[in-house]
Order: sequence, then C-alpha cells, then structure tokens
Amino acid sequence: MKPVILFAAGVPRWRHWEAPLRNALSDAGIEADLVTEAAPDTVDFILYAPGGDTPPDFTAFTRCKAVLSLWAGVERIVGNPTLTQPLCRMVDPGLTQGMVEYVTGHVLRSHLGIDALLASQNGRWNPVVPPLASERPVAILGLGALGTACAQALAGLGFPVLGWSRRAKEIAGVACLHGTDGLYAALRQAQILVTLLPATPQTENTLNAETLSLLPRGATLINPGRGSLIDDDALLAALASGRVGHATLDVFRTEPLPHDHPFWAHPRITVTPHVAADTRPSSAARVLAENIRRGLAGEPFLHVVDRGAGY
Amino acid sequence: MKPVILFAAGVPRWRHWEAPLRNALSDAGIEADLVTEAAPDTVDFILYAPGGDTPPDFTAFTRCKAVLSLWAGVERIVGNPTLTQPLCRMVDPGLTQGMVEYVTGHVLRSHLGIDALLASQNGRWNPVVPPLASERPVAILGLGALGTACAQALAGLGFPVLGWSRRAKEIAGVACLHGTDGLYAALRQAQILVTLLPATPQTENTLNAETLSLLPRGATLINPGRGSLIDDDALLAALASGRVGHATLDVFRTEPLPHDHPFWAHPRITVTPHVAADTRPSSAARVLAENIRRGLAGEPFLHVVDRGAGY
Repeated sequence: MKPVILFAAGVPRWRHWEAPLRNALSDAGIEADLVTEAAPDTVDFILYAPGGDTPPDFTAFTRCKAVLSLWAGVERIVGNPTLTQPLCRMVDPGLTQGMVEYVTGHVLRSHLGIDALLASQNGRWNPVVPPLASERPVAILGLGALGTACAQALAGLGFPVLGWSRRAKEIAGVACLHGTDGLYAALRQAQILVTLLPATPQTENTLNAETLSLLPRGATLINPGRGSLIDDDALLAALASGRVGHATLDVFRTEPLPHDHPFWAHPRITVTPHVAADTRPSSAARVLAENIRRGLAGEPFLHVVDRGAGY
Repeated sequence: MKPVILFAAGVPRWRHWEAPLRNALSDAGIEADLVTEAAPDTVDFILYAPGGDTPPDFTAFTRCKAVLSLWAGVERIVGNPTLTQPLCRMVDPGLTQGMVEYVTGHVLRSHLGIDALLASQNGRWNPVVPPLASERPVAILGLGALGTACAQALAGLGFPVLGWSRRAKEIAGVACLHGTDGLYAALRQAQILVTLLPATPQTENTLNAETLSLLPRGATLINPGRGSLIDDDALLAALASGRVGHATLDVFRTEPLPHDHPFWAHPRITVTPHVAADTRPSSAARVLAENIRRGLAGEPFLHVVDRGAGY
C-alpha cells in the first residue's frame, strides 16, 4: 500500500506546492498518495503550515510518522498538546538564500547611508564617503541556519561580525559569543544589529529597555526574525532617545501589521511586509521528500524540533 | 643623498596624506625627503593628483624615476605631452573594498526593490517576495581590479555574473565575455548593469542609444566608473522609453554635477556625489611606498599605465 501524505496547509498554498511536491517525490523515487483530504488513521505524513484560527487536532492521526512544517518558525504548533508525532522544521536552502540577500542588502543600505542619499537629490553636491565595512561592527543574534549564513556573508564582505547564540557555537570568521554576558558584549559593539532568534518563551522581548540601552548611540536594528523578540514600546522609546537611529522590521506581533500601528508612520522605522525570506516550494519540496524517504526507510529525520527548546 | 619625493597633489590633500605616507615609508625602510616643494631637477618621485586648471609641466623633472598617481583614473594626466617618465595608477585595496561595498549595496537595493519598500510606508500590507539572486543576471563592464572584485563579490552572493572587458579574461565563477559581440551578449542579459570601465577615447559613450536598446526592459544601470562612459541624452531617452528602469550614477562629465542638471530632479535617477570609492591614504600610502622601494631597487613598478591604452 502506498504511503499517504496529507497536505494540511490550505487550498491557496496547494496551488503553489502540488507540482513541486509531485516532482520532488518522483525524483526521490517515492510512490505515494499526495492528498489534501484523508481519513486521519490512514495518513503517514502531514505537511503542515498554520492557517485559520482553530489549532489543529492531531489526536486521530494514529499512524502518522511525522508532521513536516512548511515553515522555519514552528511557534504556532510546537506547544500543541495533541501533537505527539515527531515535528520537523523547514530548513529550505531557498529561504536561507533569500534571508542572506535581505540581511546583506539592508545592512549595506544602512552602512552606505542609502536612505540619506535618496533623500538628498536636491542639486547639492555634498560628498561624504562612508567608512569601510571593516570599521562597522555588525552583531547577529541567533546562529541557526539563517543567522549562520548571514554572518558568513557579511564577514565575507569585510564586516567585523559578532554572533550570539544561547549555546556556544563556532563559525569561521565570526566572533561567537553566548550567555548573558556575551549578549551584552555583542550589543555594546553593534553599530548594526540583526535579530534572527526563534520565537520561544525565552527569546520574548530579548530587545527591551535594558538591552536596547547597551547599543552604541544611533545603532541600526534589522529584525527579519520574529516580532516577539522586541518589546515594541521599548523600541519606540529607544528611537525617541536616539539610542536606536533606525529600525527595519519585517516581522510583527500581529501580521499583517495593523494599518494604524505607529510603526507605519514612524520616520525612522521601515516596515517590510514579511518578505525577508519565503519558503520556496521548489527547493523546500526536495527537503520534504528527503524527510519522507527517511521516514519510510526508518532513518532519522532531518531538522527535528526540540520540544523543550521550542525550535 | 636621500631620495626626494615631491607631494604634488595640493595642500588640502597633504593634511590627510602626510602622516600615512611618513608611516608607510618608515615601515618600508625608506629614508627619504618627503616634501611639497623642491627644485624640479632634485626630485626622484612625484606623487600626483589633479588640481587646478593648468596641466602640470613635467619637463624640468629630469631625474624623476616615476609619477605615481594617487587616483585610479589617470585620464587627466595620461595624455600630458610633457610626461616622459613612467606613470603608475593607484590600485588601492581600500578603494577596491569601498567600490565592492557600493556596488554590492546598490545591486541589492535594486534586486530587493528597496526604493519601492521605502516609498510604500502607507499602512498597506502588500507582501511581494523578490526572486532569488540566482534569477537576476548582473553584467559588469570592465574587469580591472575594481570590476573583478565586484564581480567576485556578486557571484559569491549568488548572482549570475557576466563580465565584459576589451581583452579576453578569465575569472572563476564569472562568465567572461569580450569584443563587440561579447558586449552585446552581456547587455542583452543584464537585468542590472554596472559600468567600471576606465575613461579612454575607446570607452567614451560605451552606453549610447544603440547599446542601451539591447538591455532587458526596465534594466537598472549603476555607473560608479566614469561619466564619459554614458551618452547622457541617450540615457534620458532610454529612461523615458522604459528600456532603463532606474539609473544610479556616481560619476559625471562635469563634477560637481551642476545643480540645474536634469539628472538631479529625475524621478528614476539617483545621483550619488562621487562617493562610490575613495582612495584611502592609509592603505594607498603603502602601495606608493612599495613602488618607491621598487624604483630605488631598480625593480619593475606596479600598476604602470599603458599610454596607448590610456589605463
């Protein structure tokens, strides 16, 4: 009997995913029934992304070998008490590449003063050459797949990069720090700060009044990670005091960001509408097919979520 | 007798260069008289950058071993008929690094649609995820020290990079083209075009009505090379027709760009005031000291200008 793979991420997504998934399964030599509806006790794998207001109930999926998230962030499913099956995060090379491009582009935008150049098309020739990247320390909070790739790209361009993670890590060319003292040391040097931590109870409000006060005056904040990493009111206060010079935010506690939210109109906040990095069905489908192959062969899954840590 | 090194680049520059030059000469073990005035027939080396309206007369510098330019571009001196001494260009690692940062930053600005993001801080959540760099061909005209470094940086970020030069070259990870057919092939694919050719009679108006018409519709042009590479009227026409979607220009036929020049007010031209890359006295002084050491030891100079080619 062919394994049953349930696509449980909604009809609009199915249109983008069906062809890449069928191709990836075929390329991996997997014969399966890929469906959008099935009796729960016949399903072998669930492909999942959040949708709707009701949390899913996984209780009846008694033969399911794994729930495979289409998303890198799993905070909306990891605490679901009905989820007893292994849960795997998406680590999509296309998503990682998109994040590297977004982070590198917005770091260089800040470094080169591009906003000021765009705002001074007024006929006045006022050459101000920026310092070299080697004089502009960048800190990256979070050294998972995304933070590591961004740290390496920025170090490759000549920026001194400080990386911080909860647990100690080593990345060639990156000054890796960990623990509370390490966080404070990274923040004190960060002319540009990039937040790429996962959303967990421990990372909530990592940037608050106290930690923001450690930044060099006029620092740039770039948050393509998760909205919950930042205490929004503390950020607005840090912008008002000049401690933070500019913030570019891609993720928010409520998305879409409400049209009357103060971030939209703030002259020193740039809102980008959760476009930093998107799962790319063509590359992500290959990651899903590989995990399904592993599940069928009894091999360990890739990117299994640590339920205690939350990512 | 100690060699005499004449700093012939003007008093304002002397303030920035004196200390780096003295340090670099000392580090290179060279004992010399570094001066801003000297009897011409006592001078062993001239450190030169353009200044004032009168072209310099090198006739009386009868014992001068070389004229060492502080600038990468030598078009204002290479044709000087009184210059019979060897002429060396500046190839400054600091300038090259600055150029890589400018070009990478403005390529990513175009690729990510940053201008449109900045212009849409209006409360409307309209996520449009850009394609990956791998789907955005970039062409670089000119594969000298600057073009090569930029091509390598962009290829490292995942862009398909086409490089074009007058003579055939090979650069790992870059599709190198040459000759007229190669130029046309590069332009036809260039969603983003970067011009880093030297200013010579052969490169004048490399971008004209005919060559601009080859670009993909809506292409982005970035010119941090030299103003003379572009026929300004042809560029304005290509912007009007939509062939060129946006141009970021750092160099101009007349600098400072006159305040009433149409480039300043054009909604799809960004003027940057010749800030893409600056010679950095600290790193450039070490290049000059090395060439002085070579001259004193009778070794071949670095970066000697080919008078016929003009660079």
